[in-house]
Amino acid sequence: MAEKLEPIVTAAELEAFAETEFPQIHQDGRVFSIHDLAPGQIVMRLDTTDRHLRPGGTVSGPALFTFADISAYFVIMAHVGLKALSVTTSVHLNFMRKAKPGPLFCTCRLLKCGQRLAVVDALITDHEDNIIAQGSLTYSVPPR
Amino acid sequence: MAEKLEPIVTAAELEAFAETEFPQIHQDGRVFSIHDLAPGQIVMRLDTTDRHLRPGGTVSGPALFTFADISAYFVIMAHVGLKALSVTTSVHLNFMRKAKPGPLFCTCRLLKCGQRLAVVDALITDHEDNIIAQGSLTYSVPPR
Amino acid sequence: MAEKLEPIVTAAELEAFAETEFPQIHQDGRVFSIHDLAPGQIVMRLDTTDRHLRPGGTVSGPALFTFADISAYFVIMAHVGLKALSVTTSVHLNFMRKAKPGPLFCTCRLLKCGQRLAVVDALITDHEDNIIAQGSLTYSVPPR
Amino acid sequence: MAEKLEPIVTAAELEAFAETEFPQIHQDGRVFSIHDLAPGQIVMRLDTTDRHLRPGGTVSGPALFTFADISAYFVIMAHVGLKALSVTTSVHLNFMRKAKPGPLFCTCRLLKCGQRLAVVDALITDHEDNIIAQGSLTYSVPPR
Repeated sequence: MAEKLEPIVTAAELEAFAETEFPQIHQDGRVFSIHDLAPGQIVMRLDTTDRHLRPGGTVSGPALFTFADISAYFVIMAHVGLKALSVTTSVHLNFMRKAKPGPLFCTCRLLKCGQRLAVVDALITDHEDNIIAQGSLTYSVPPR
Repeated sequence: MAEKLEPIVTAAELEAFAETEFPQIHQDGRVFSIHDLAPGQIVMRLDTTDRHLRPGGTVSGPALFTFADISAYFVIMAHVGLKALSVTTSVHLNFMRKAKPGPLFCTCRLLKCGQRLAVVDALITDHEDNIIAQGSLTYSVPPR
Repeated sequence: MAEKLEPIVTAAELEAFAETEFPQIHQDGRVFSIHDLAPGQIVMRLDTTDRHLRPGGTVSGPALFTFADISAYFVIMAHVGLKALSVTTSVHLNFMRKAKPGPLFCTCRLLKCGQRLAVVDALITDHEDNIIAQGSLTYSVPPR
Repeated sequence: MAEKLEPIVTAAELEAFAETEFPQIHQDGRVFSIHDLAPGQIVMRLDTTDRHLRPGGTVSGPALFTFADISAYFVIMAHVGLKALSVTTSVHLNFMRKAKPGPLFCTCRLLKCGQRLAVVDALITDHEDNIIAQGSLTYSVPPR
């Protein structure tokens, strides 16, 4: 990508912010954590619990959606700052394989981070690198 | 739509099935209910609780996603039977307006109900008929 | 839909505008025409030619995409005016049935027509009312 | 990706096949070519002509759609064989930046290549590596 992107917020600052301003993400326990933050990209980790499972013991679609949404939200905040409250305007997700309980990873790349819109590519994999879900999310970003 | 679709399962049978086979949908209380079932279409109701809210008091994206997914799953089961376990293969949702706490309605229409794939259009509105979200969901349907 | 929408441009004005400002839509002959314009909605007609066909004689995906894009663009122009040049920001289309040569109809409804974004639902049917494709398109609308 | 994918068709075989069985892709001149074919991935090149442009001299959405669709179709054929005619079942594309006339590149990765469905990630860039469009396409693949 020709556009240069640099995080302006650290992983520790993101986690502290979530703690105080966005406690809902921990409503089912501390299941989400930042695995890696890099220019234009974040990798988040989800440790699934019984709440995230469907009949048959696979991770539910809504759990994967929530994971992608939180990860995309974090990568945007990391690059535009903690004060700019983005709003999800659209989500598209393909579900490719069933995920068993265990750690999942969501890699979110900022494809565009414009004055109005941010577009994020999301890829969810399991700990053996199988692709579980993939898609893109769009956010309306307030003027900075 | 030229294709004729008729439900082969009643609303009461759907709710009884969910009760015994799919108790996860009630894990946050009895918030989902069938409002209307008709040929090729279902209208579901969601009574939101604090769990469904984001900072600022609006209904969260994951809550809307879960609502659309359950509604689409129900309209497919109503037309292909309770034994055919569909699997979500893709979801696309546009979020149009913030939803305040209160009853929401999801109207799901079966656009296609084929041998392999079912495609459902979903429209989420509030009690004043404002459009909150809209999109489509695709399911892999097992051979019948 | 609670939001009231009224066209501010007539069908004849739209067609005259396309003629002078957007001649590309006629580059393969006069295949697109306005069938009906109503509050919040347009119905466009496509008379397919050999250019629109794939091996096997069915209408191609790109032809259906172009049809949806032009129809959505027209319904937005009808409601925001001819001077506001919208830009397509995303398209999602499900292809449900193969379309044979012959007239096709695209019904586009404005789901949202905001200060920044317009969201349009598109449904393509054949002359027997079979659903061929369905989806949604999003446009960035300039400040008015 | 844990799943191992290997092409079973060469780039030369793909191009010869398109020549005889799919001449429509050359209906506007020889604008599409294979730039690179690798395990699970293809890079295609589009040399735009005036036909691909919109008012203002930028590459049109339908031209980008066609490019993504052909590229995805080619990567699937390369991995499942020339006899298996896939059918596009859905397309989602985000348009990120306007593309000027000149060579464009579409990188398509096979995210899933199952018994029924193939899912392809598509990224369109210009010759300076700017991201123009990104999305995913789904195809119904016949039994092999």
